[in-house]
Amino acid sequence: MVAAVSAFHAIIPAGGAGTRLWPLSRQGHPKFLLDLDDSGRTLIQQTWDRMLALTTPDRIHVVSGVAHGSAIAAQLPDLVNLLLEPSARDSMPAIGLAAAIVERDDPDAVVGSFAADHRIPDAENFDAAVREAIAVAAQGYVVTIGITPDEPSTAFGYIAAGDRLDAHTSARAVLEFVEKPDAATARAYLDGGSHVWNAGMFVAGAGVLMDALARFKPDLAAGLRQIASAWGTATFVAELERTWPTLEKIAIDHAVAEPVAAEGGMAVVPATFGWDDLGDYAAIAALGSSPDVLWVDADGVARGEEGVQIAVLGLRNVAVVQTSDAVLVLDLAQSQRVKEVVAALTETGRTDLL
Amino acid sequence: MVAAVSAFHAIIPAGGAGTRLWPLSRQGHPKFLLDLDDSGRTLIQQTWDRMLALTTPDRIHVVSGVAHGSAIAAQLPDLVNLLLEPSARDSMPAIGLAAAIVERDDPDAVVGSFAADHRIPDAENFDAAVREAIAVAAQGYVVTIGITPDEPSTAFGYIAAGDRLDAHTSARAVLEFVEKPDAATARAYLDGGSHVWNAGMFVAGAGVLMDALARFKPDLAAGLRQIASAWGTATFVAELERTWPTLEKIAIDHAVAEPVAAEGGMAVVPATFGWDDLGDYAAIAALGSSPDVLWVDADGVARGEEGVQIAVLGLRNVAVVQTSDAVLVLDLAQSQRVKEVVAALTETGRTDLL
Repeated sequence: MVAAVSAFHAIIPAGGAGTRLWPLSRQGHPKFLLDLDDSGRTLIQQTWDRMLALTTPDRIHVVSGVAHGSAIAAQLPDLVNLLLEPSARDSMPAIGLAAAIVERDDPDAVVGSFAADHRIPDAENFDAAVREAIAVAAQGYVVTIGITPDEPSTAFGYIAAGDRLDAHTSARAVLEFVEKPDAATARAYLDGGSHVWNAGMFVAGAGVLMDALARFKPDLAAGLRQIASAWGTATFVAELERTWPTLEKIAIDHAVAEPVAAEGGMAVVPATFGWDDLGDYAAIAALGSSPDVLWVDADGVARGEEGVQIAVLGLRNVAVVQTSDAVLVLDLAQSQRVKEVVAALTETGRTDLL
Repeated sequence: MVAAVSAFHAIIPAGGAGTRLWPLSRQGHPKFLLDLDDSGRTLIQQTWDRMLALTTPDRIHVVSGVAHGSAIAAQLPDLVNLLLEPSARDSMPAIGLAAAIVERDDPDAVVGSFAADHRIPDAENFDAAVREAIAVAAQGYVVTIGITPDEPSTAFGYIAAGDRLDAHTSARAVLEFVEKPDAATARAYLDGGSHVWNAGMFVAGAGVLMDALARFKPDLAAGLRQIASAWGTATFVAELERTWPTLEKIAIDHAVAEPVAAEGGMAVVPATFGWDDLGDYAAIAALGSSPDVLWVDADGVARGEEGVQIAVLGLRNVAVVQTSDAVLVLDLAQSQRVKEVVAALTETGRTDLL
């Protein structure tokens, strides 16, 4: 296992419009750049810290949009490998480009992709799960880490887990990926004990991953390998700008994970560490409010600038979010609808606020 | 009636902590300094405008706290008579000081007191009611203007009206003043048709008013006349600062209106003009929100600084109030409780926000 980790490359896709956390997150300042848990480290910095426990800075690859390059570089001063996408083409091209670059020099290296904007407070159990996933990936599997549910959440996709691969691992075969369920189905998953949350974490040999992509999406794999071949040369940017726009816009789940699972080549490591994708204000609420918010016969979550007094009177389960140019107030039970606010601002032409 | 109006002096008491409109109103920036209806004129400016239709600038007397002198002078450039109280001693000393000053030079002059922070959009009917009150006051009555209720409000005190004084006026004898009623009583008042809202407007001959005060509160009347005797001389400020702290802290309702009513000397002119004391955010809600507030499956009132986008999602009947240093969010049905927020800020030592 030590040998596997020593050849481990971490890929951190840093994307997402983050519209459900407006006005804290903006197009130009996405969620991964925010310190949402008031820890002193932003989400991408926390992700970096988790990866540093598994590998060295020269083996950490951040993939993001060109608009965020300077902000990421400022937050991660030790970052070496920063890949900037000319346009957003979903997760497969982003992760695949980093994987193709790793594959070029070391096809046997194991790569693991971990979103830049998730929160994982339990570093120790996360680390152990990734190390197990790396060991399973070294056997040729595409491996995902699935979170054992502690509630019947309808906010996440699920993975149906089959038998354990062997007696030496907790990893199980992936039977299928399932979309966000309704409440009754989520309850049945929780009771059944064979479904885990899809946390979007993928670990595989670089060559295994790219070969799988080449089977299911040959043009995409070829395009990524073409760009990767120019990495480190004077023609890289030209090659990237020429080929990138031709790549299929597709998520890694659909491009690789689901078809590999159907082939029986996908494994899942069930994990019990706390994990949250901080997908909406209901998730933020669990992290607490800014200091000194005044609640009078009221509760919920409130976030504001330092020096701005927020007070809430007679309202339950609300979020109040104050920034220098916007105030959003919402019923926390309707957190998923914040994107409607962003859509309305788009319609009214207030693109300066997005 | 023309003669009466020509000798009419307007008194504008400009006071009130305004805690129920925090954070729009502050101790240092009370409600009367605000343009709450976005008319381009603040409430005290609107009051000034109403008085100018009845008398001349040299016969308008504003009484306020020393802290507000410069702000009032800036908003009312034509103001001549600005009386600044060394400390707040409720409405009788404030109104009485102006009345005593008027009485000194012209005991037969009629004075009328109208709060600086009420909203009266129907200037024409207001003007007619005041002119009728002045005519009744010239007969020796202490006169109030009562608002004919159009709903069973529990937010105002009421006046029980008796018979009409004579066939030539709509003014009626005041039977008694009653405190804010419960809902059932308010409904009975509305149905009965003999109760009007106490809008705190008092009209009387200056000598009549001061003589009445001298009967019920002789020390207070003597103190006010003592200070008034120094008005216009070099010793005025010294006299004010010496005597003012000795004056009884009491409302004009209790000091004069109620005992005069008990004597049968109080009349009420029922009026139908729109009137609102803008006592809480539920009242502000009727005036509308700042421009460009975004309501998504939500309603209520929102006020904010220019350039700050306010958005509300999934909440009904709420107020959202944003200023440079505070954000207040509340259930409009609990508007009267905003003073609890102010009390809590006082307790936590945030007096800078009050």
